[in-house]
Amino acid sequence: MRTGIATVCLSGTLEQKLRAAAKAGFGGVEIFEADLVTSPLSPEEVRALAEDLDLGLDLYQPFRDFDSVPDELYRANLRRAEAKFKLMGRLGIDTILVCSNVATASAAYADDDGLRAEQLHGLAELAADHGVKVAYEALAWGTFVNDYEHAWRIVADVDHPNLGTCLDTFHILSRGWDTEPIERIPGEKIFFVQVADAPKLSMDVLNWSRHYRVFPGEGQFDLPKFLGHVARTGYNGPVSLEVFNDTFRQSDVERTAVDAMRSLIWLEERTAKHLAAAAASPAGAAAEPAAGAGVGAPTAAQLAAASRAYPMSLTTLPQVAPPSGINFAEVKSADAAPSTLELEQLLAQLGFESRGEHRTKPVSLWTLGEARIIVNRQQARGVAPAISALGFDVDNAVTAVARALQLKAVAVPRTSQANEEVLQAVQAPDGTEVFLCQDTLWTEEFGQGAPALGGQAPRIDHINLAQPWQHYDEGVLFYSSVLALTPQPSQEVSSPTGLVRSQVMQTELVEGERAVRLALNLAPWVQADSVRGTVEDTFQEHIAIAVPDLVATARACRARKLPFLRIPENYYEDLDARFALEPEFLATLRELDLLYDRDEKGDFLHFYTATVGSVFFEMVQRIGGYDGFGAPNAPVRHAVQHSLRTARAAR
Amino acid sequence: MRTGIATVCLSGTLEQKLRAAAKAGFGGVEIFEADLVTSPLSPEEVRALAEDLDLGLDLYQPFRDFDSVPDELYRANLRRAEAKFKLMGRLGIDTILVCSNVATASAAYADDDGLRAEQLHGLAELAADHGVKVAYEALAWGTFVNDYEHAWRIVADVDHPNLGTCLDTFHILSRGWDTEPIERIPGEKIFFVQVADAPKLSMDVLNWSRHYRVFPGEGQFDLPKFLGHVARTGYNGPVSLEVFNDTFRQSDVERTAVDAMRSLIWLEERTAKHLAAAAASPAGAAAEPAAGAGVGAPTAAQLAAASRAYPMSLTTLPQVAPPSGINFAEVKSADAAPSTLELEQLLAQLGFESRGEHRTKPVSLWTLGEARIIVNRQQARGVAPAISALGFDVDNAVTAVARALQLKAVAVPRTSQANEEVLQAVQAPDGTEVFLCQDTLWTEEFGQGAPALGGQAPRIDHINLAQPWQHYDEGVLFYSSVLALTPQPSQEVSSPTGLVRSQVMQTELVEGERAVRLALNLAPWVQADSVRGTVEDTFQEHIAIAVPDLVATARACRARKLPFLRIPENYYEDLDARFALEPEFLATLRELDLLYDRDEKGDFLHFYTATVGSVFFEMVQRIGGYDGFGAPNAPVRHAVQHSLRTARAAR
Repeated sequence: MRTGIATVCLSGTLEQKLRAAAKAGFGGVEIFEADLVTSPLSPEEVRALAEDLDLGLDLYQPFRDFDSVPDELYRANLRRAEAKFKLMGRLGIDTILVCSNVATASAAYADDDGLRAEQLHGLAELAADHGVKVAYEALAWGTFVNDYEHAWRIVADVDHPNLGTCLDTFHILSRGWDTEPIERIPGEKIFFVQVADAPKLSMDVLNWSRHYRVFPGEGQFDLPKFLGHVARTGYNGPVSLEVFNDTFRQSDVERTAVDAMRSLIWLEERTAKHLAAAAASPAGAAAEPAAGAGVGAPTAAQLAAASRAYPMSLTTLPQVAPPSGINFAEVKSADAAPSTLELEQLLAQLGFESRGEHRTKPVSLWTLGEARIIVNRQQARGVAPAISALGFDVDNAVTAVARALQLKAVAVPRTSQANEEVLQAVQAPDGTEVFLCQDTLWTEEFGQGAPALGGQAPRIDHINLAQPWQHYDEGVLFYSSVLALTPQPSQEVSSPTGLVRSQVMQTELVEGERAVRLALNLAPWVQADSVRGTVEDTFQEHIAIAVPDLVATARACRARKLPFLRIPENYYEDLDARFALEPEFLATLRELDLLYDRDEKGDFLHFYTATVGSVFFEMVQRIGGYDGFGAPNAPVRHAVQHSLRTARAAR
Repeated sequence: MRTGIATVCLSGTLEQKLRAAAKAGFGGVEIFEADLVTSPLSPEEVRALAEDLDLGLDLYQPFRDFDSVPDELYRANLRRAEAKFKLMGRLGIDTILVCSNVATASAAYADDDGLRAEQLHGLAELAADHGVKVAYEALAWGTFVNDYEHAWRIVADVDHPNLGTCLDTFHILSRGWDTEPIERIPGEKIFFVQVADAPKLSMDVLNWSRHYRVFPGEGQFDLPKFLGHVARTGYNGPVSLEVFNDTFRQSDVERTAVDAMRSLIWLEERTAKHLAAAAASPAGAAAEPAAGAGVGAPTAAQLAAASRAYPMSLTTLPQVAPPSGINFAEVKSADAAPSTLELEQLLAQLGFESRGEHRTKPVSLWTLGEARIIVNRQQARGVAPAISALGFDVDNAVTAVARALQLKAVAVPRTSQANEEVLQAVQAPDGTEVFLCQDTLWTEEFGQGAPALGGQAPRIDHINLAQPWQHYDEGVLFYSSVLALTPQPSQEVSSPTGLVRSQVMQTELVEGERAVRLALNLAPWVQADSVRGTVEDTFQEHIAIAVPDLVATARACRARKLPFLRIPENYYEDLDARFALEPEFLATLRELDLLYDRDEKGDFLHFYTATVGSVFFEMVQRIGGYDGFGAPNAPVRHAVQHSLRTARAAR
């Protein structure tokens, strides 16, 4: 599949954008006019740079407000177009995007497709003189033409070799147009395909389009189905990203380009799966296969067949199943710092046992049942201790790593001794190292091996990671594409320093259990001059351990003098008003600083520890299939933690 | 007017919120339940603190999902309510807000106002036992009750002394409900009034409400008209702010509270004006008086009469006319720094003349026609030179300052010698000092007085100030309430580091001229790790001078070796494609690095200088009533400036 990206997706100057797109591996770019107009590079220099970078210049865009205008304006528009055609000749670009008119369309021609055809025919004739192809696109908010089928009918009527259509997923899916009829357009009359994903927002389509588009896999559009229709037309041109996003415009250009490339690789694979599934069961063609290679997903042979069946060849990746558990979590801390001792004390008070030091590194292993935590005392940065790495249980680590690398994940450089387990890791967008583990043999490198335990043993229930705002969407795509986790609808909870947005990524329920739960949290950015918070407010993260009997665990922890997060009395009064709990049970919650929640499936009990550096711990008990995270209790936690931090900062 | 604020408007802990509200001068607060539940203060301690602070506890809120439910849930809801009524007794709060059901309303009762009346009657009876008053409110997204008139009909049917209604401007105006019928509700049955403003957004009302509310005067709702209706009912209770806003939740609690208080003072005055205007001309009751006390605005006597005519007394402020010009701009710079010399050189190259040193301070005056720029070489902070003060021409400085102080503006402390003009200044939200000037006698304190000049003389056309993101809305309210400037619809332009939002504040057109134009710019926050920008990207600001013949000015500046901002050749090619300019004229633009724009009224010519510190200059010529700022050219400027800054940073 030929991949492309519009320069408007990226931050920086035109030159920076082109270099970043090439470095990320794109086949071509769309030159967004404003990027050229504001650039000191001449068209010839842009062309030479793209050639040097082996980057195609696939589209010049946008050309606006051409059709449905009175004759005088039509002639002015032709003159304007000719200037751009000449410019394209200097750039070496052969295709221009012409959008349906939004600003100057005359009401007199509201229903006059005949006039539109005539004007587009005139444009196509002029284009032919300059060796240019015109791709006519229906904008979702076009005055008279806002439906891709309408745009195509006009193009079909004109029937000129230099006029085709451009399909843009945002303009089509935001309006909810049926995508089935795409297959009735001959592939050679589709001159360009632009893709963007978006969260499903209920707002005016223009603002939704200009600010909230995201890369494929970061939103909620069914893009594999769309691209499946396109593939069946015989289209074999670029599949190019056009994503207007306020954050991407502000983010580092090189990493945004990599995120973008990952999204197209993901889309390519998902499209191949969609086509293979549809071919295998034509009746269920519309059904989307589950994330990863779950039950019923197409086989490698079916995928390969699907990718060979269409002119648009679809490369696929090594297939992996979603992880079956969290193998370990690693916390980095500075060697011999007081906070390291505090962290180790906290683990001991929680009931973790020290399994000794690593043979060669300043690293220790702590376990509680099947929950493994590594305390790494080398190279701490920022507010330490902090969560630095997560291990995920996978069927085949070699395949999983190969997949991650093909998805442009960056391998973490590791030095291993000859006799050590070789653990492979890649870096998540927030810098967390993600290890892909097939077993726990690595634990033998510590003094005492940790015994494997049964089903009721404590284990890591979930991990909550703080995300920098500029990598939030990237994080969603990373964990879904690399690890086959499934994003849930995002939630917001209030804190004293602002709203915290939380995005849960998890595996599917298997026999009432979820193997992996990961929450990505976007906390408000705290600045010294804006609010009486501390920078730690922004980057708190935690590890939650599931235990079979939380009350017993809490009592044991209390006996070990664990510093609990103290819950205000007002919380328990509100809890009682909401749930009418048994007085004895309520008294136990109160006594032990436990929090409580209930959903339609069951009950949730949990408590939190004090924070060390930017890390704290949570102990949880899920009863009867409760499937949440106690979100209604999160504001209480945030408020108490905030008060502790500001009190500490004031000291 | 009794003023109030809901604790949810503010950041921080409950204690911080109460202290900030009291300090800003609020009469009372609404306790938002989550703020109490998460607080370590007992209800009795909250009550005692409020008494200490002389702050009323006027409302407990919200109580959700009460009505339209089956009997079993109704009984559970009564139990839940009773717990809250007891809590209110401990807090000493006598009114609770009950919202129409959004979560648990049963479809069986969709049209059953009889059942709703019965259930609310039961609640009112229970409330009476506890000495509590229930204020029932229709949420804009209530399942069955989403219209204030509907809520009122039910309350009227119940006819119980402990049941009244709550009117909330957001829930009423966001749905576009007619506000006229408010006057048919007896004032004593309105138990509470909540006010919020909002920009007019086309999005789902729940998200609009939860994230985008702003304080009165910062959005687009017609709140004076609304409050006029309320005043006419005889209502005399609190007018309380309930504003859910992502930024305010993150901002410093004390300054947000002051911003909030200013908004109510503004609203009080605007309501009095609305009532006075309506009384003076009953036919035009709906017409809103213009900002400030423009032509045809009510007299002080009429205002006073209006404020006495209703139980809700409306205090008014000293009246001021919008400013008639920009008296001067001050740029702060460090004494003897190379950048100060660079700044003074730039002014000289622009044609400014040095009018000498101030008699007693390290301050110099530069003039070009009627444009006065002060270079202040004391106390520079941040990236200097930077714009530090603006002088506005007002009719009466004493009145203008009195008004500003009543609007909670902070006076700038000044030390003046006995024989100096006493200039009075207040601080704008971004820290800019705003001077209120009646004349230019102060210029005599410099070596040579600057001569007064005629109509065609150069003058300050506009000032463009960078705003910190957390004070953007506050800035809009400050300049409209204190200086009687009128906000225009905001605009966005792209830059290499993200979108720049621009909010123009200006005086009305008088004979085709605008006396004052001010643009507040919100630039993307540049962080070192997120984009290859520099922190200066965020805080660029400029002073624009209008001249009668820009081409001549540009030639003269070029002869003086002014460092122009160099405009890329691609810009001129695009300009030609868009406007088909005369070749000779285009050649002149190109030769002199001039930019060009056109609107329906006329043409605009302008150029920019290089930047010193965070300040640059623009020279403009408005031809034939052009009324914009050359916004289509802003991306070119941003791109060129960004390239220069990153090149300099790389050196």
